[in-house]
Amino acid sequence: MSDLRTQIQELGRRARAAARTLAQTSTDTRNRALLAMADALVADEAAILPANAADVAAGQAAGLAPAMLDRLRLDARRLRAMADGVRAVAALPDPVGRILREWTRPNGLRHTKVAVPIGVIGIIYESRPNVTSDAASLCLKTGNAVILRGGSESLRSNLAIAAALARGLAAAGLPGEAVQVVASADREAVKHLCAMDEFLDLVIPRGGRGLIEAVVASARVPVIKHYDGICALYVDRAADPAMAEEITLNAKCQRPGVCNAIETLLVHREIAAAFLRHTGAALLARGVQLRCDPEAQALLTPLAGAHPGRVVAATAQDYRTEFLDLILAVKVVDSPAAAIAHIAEHGSHHSDAIVTADAAVAERFLAEVDSATVYWNASTRFTDGGEFGFGAEIGISTDKLHARGPMGLEELTTYKYVMRGTGQVRG
Amino acid sequence: MSDLRTQIQELGRRARAAARTLAQTSTDTRNRALLAMADALVADEAAILPANAADVAAGQAAGLAPAMLDRLRLDARRLRAMADGVRAVAALPDPVGRILREWTRPNGLRHTKVAVPIGVIGIIYESRPNVTSDAASLCLKTGNAVILRGGSESLRSNLAIAAALARGLAAAGLPGEAVQVVASADREAVKHLCAMDEFLDLVIPRGGRGLIEAVVASARVPVIKHYDGICALYVDRAADPAMAEEITLNAKCQRPGVCNAIETLLVHREIAAAFLRHTGAALLARGVQLRCDPEAQALLTPLAGAHPGRVVAATAQDYRTEFLDLILAVKVVDSPAAAIAHIAEHGSHHSDAIVTADAAVAERFLAEVDSATVYWNASTRFTDGGEFGFGAEIGISTDKLHARGPMGLEELTTYKYVMRGTGQVRG
Repeated sequence: MSDLRTQIQELGRRARAAARTLAQTSTDTRNRALLAMADALVADEAAILPANAADVAAGQAAGLAPAMLDRLRLDARRLRAMADGVRAVAALPDPVGRILREWTRPNGLRHTKVAVPIGVIGIIYESRPNVTSDAASLCLKTGNAVILRGGSESLRSNLAIAAALARGLAAAGLPGEAVQVVASADREAVKHLCAMDEFLDLVIPRGGRGLIEAVVASARVPVIKHYDGICALYVDRAADPAMAEEITLNAKCQRPGVCNAIETLLVHREIAAAFLRHTGAALLARGVQLRCDPEAQALLTPLAGAHPGRVVAATAQDYRTEFLDLILAVKVVDSPAAAIAHIAEHGSHHSDAIVTADAAVAERFLAEVDSATVYWNASTRFTDGGEFGFGAEIGISTDKLHARGPMGLEELTTYKYVMRGTGQVRG
Repeated sequence: MSDLRTQIQELGRRARAAARTLAQTSTDTRNRALLAMADALVADEAAILPANAADVAAGQAAGLAPAMLDRLRLDARRLRAMADGVRAVAALPDPVGRILREWTRPNGLRHTKVAVPIGVIGIIYESRPNVTSDAASLCLKTGNAVILRGGSESLRSNLAIAAALARGLAAAGLPGEAVQVVASADREAVKHLCAMDEFLDLVIPRGGRGLIEAVVASARVPVIKHYDGICALYVDRAADPAMAEEITLNAKCQRPGVCNAIETLLVHREIAAAFLRHTGAALLARGVQLRCDPEAQALLTPLAGAHPGRVVAATAQDYRTEFLDLILAVKVVDSPAAAIAHIAEHGSHHSDAIVTADAAVAERFLAEVDSATVYWNASTRFTDGGEFGFGAEIGISTDKLHARGPMGLEELTTYKYVMRGTGQVRG
């Protein structure tokens, strides 16, 4: 057994022991720990910011892109925001212990299905150090122990943050091993982590496709993930054009770099000319590049004006790409059925929307599109734990099992069946 | 790409298309299909029984054990029982389309969390051909397409059964590809099946540990499984002795070969002498071998009488073994805490029970034992979809995600969020 594997297994063993303790704690105790963790983050500023500065300096020396350096960098304000995030989690309702269902069989045996913590959760993420405190607080809130593996470029920051969180846990009488950071930057650590099904119950990778595929390939424990957000908006012939335009602009331009922004616009042929001329101009005015099928291209090219490169022919790949940028693939379709078929073929089962005044067409779209979240007359940008009213979000799942769509506190619990009898035996 | 991989992927492609059709069918249509499938099973007796006879003859020639040959063998009565099983599934309530939660956010956007089919499910199992119709009917009931991979020794039977089921599907206007059997006996087929995350949403392996481990190692899709049922009964010092004995005998002897039978008996020291003398004699009279720690062995050895081999010293491994036989590991413990610690250390998180009249001790046991189903004053033998009132069971999960414990029709569904708005965009 390699030293690294031994080291990761030891993290796992400690996390499992901590999880057994956490599972028996009260809501109050866990909330007190969260508040103490928030206080410790602020109190440890003098340890965390220098550790972070060392990460940033190493990142600069290694030639990290400015955007990545910005995500990595902490200052006193960002640290206070992290602490406030932890306090906000303390204020949320506790999903642990909810009675999900209760019934008594004819033999008198009482069945209670009750929400309990999952156990030990692994979170694998990239450069943002704030994920360390976010993920730790959500897991602790729900009585789970967590093993965190951030990007190697933020390792010093993450270790300093975890040390502060452990002090907060200890102040509330909870084991510091409830929140642990993998101390090695070795990529093999991820493999060892995801393979140890004795000590880990779930792994949640958050990051690029390469990271997630590596986790899926090596995991022997359940993985909850989303690879891509290739979201589409279908503007039906019965759409209100003003509503359709407002939703298109919101879903594409309000924050193009996130997974619930649209990447594809499908337009019914009967309204394509009028709609694309008006809304296409609005998109172009906001700097969006339109990658079009021939029909849309013919309609939109005259609008490109001084920026002919803003209207181009789409490749087949453009309809399968998460641009995360001011780029939109556009296609004219014959019918709602063609839109639904396009989404089934090209989409990533994340969030898809229809704009129409025709309720029958809308209901068909909502029923047939097999995505985590399907919208009628609203922007796809609402696929978000906060927008759903969950109060917090550990991620968004395009998987179908356990959690689908925004994954909040409830999705960080499982259940057990508690059976209370009076001597029942099976006949 | 190997021919086999191409062939399995083709099954997947067809299953995905069938799943899209199934997801839009009504409860009535699926129930009509189930009844037609049941009729076709009986009508195809002249094709199914000779195919099965060929499997049995090949099994005999290959030296299959008599118990395995018995599980493999079909006759007219067993075939009718399979058909009746399919009809019983048709009569169950449909979990698809249930509204799980509904709420409206302050912006007026209505959120509906609705139960939908999972999509395409792979079931991998061993020799019983009746699993073919059981699993197919449960998947079809819930609007899922299924790819079935039974034991190679039952391949002819399974193909004949699947042909009958496909005729039933066609009679109800549903695609025959909703139920497909992997036609290859090659073990590599399982690997290809579990790796194709594009076409498969879930795999459920049912069988021995080797089969399940092979699936887990190669799967890129979620797996729901249970490796072992190492179930324990703890008889507390405050137990009613007669109730404790009745539950012990039921949980060990009523059907020792199943996963919810107990393999370990833990007895509080204060009542060990009286309880083990009486209940030990009853167990020995039923032919149970008792594998004991020194304290229990000293108490039980005098009872072995003409069968001294029935009371032996336990090895460490005996407390971690699923005997599936008339064998019981016995241990005297100091306290409820010691019993809970033993179960955490040795159990398989399946089903564990306490017998006690002390409510505080019982509630502690129910809270702290981290198993799918925990019992107070009842036999572990109730961990079963039928006993729970689920009407049917596709398996029992010792995993924690998506399904835990008996997995019935509801657990063969996932959910989606359907959002109905009036033009909402995100601010």
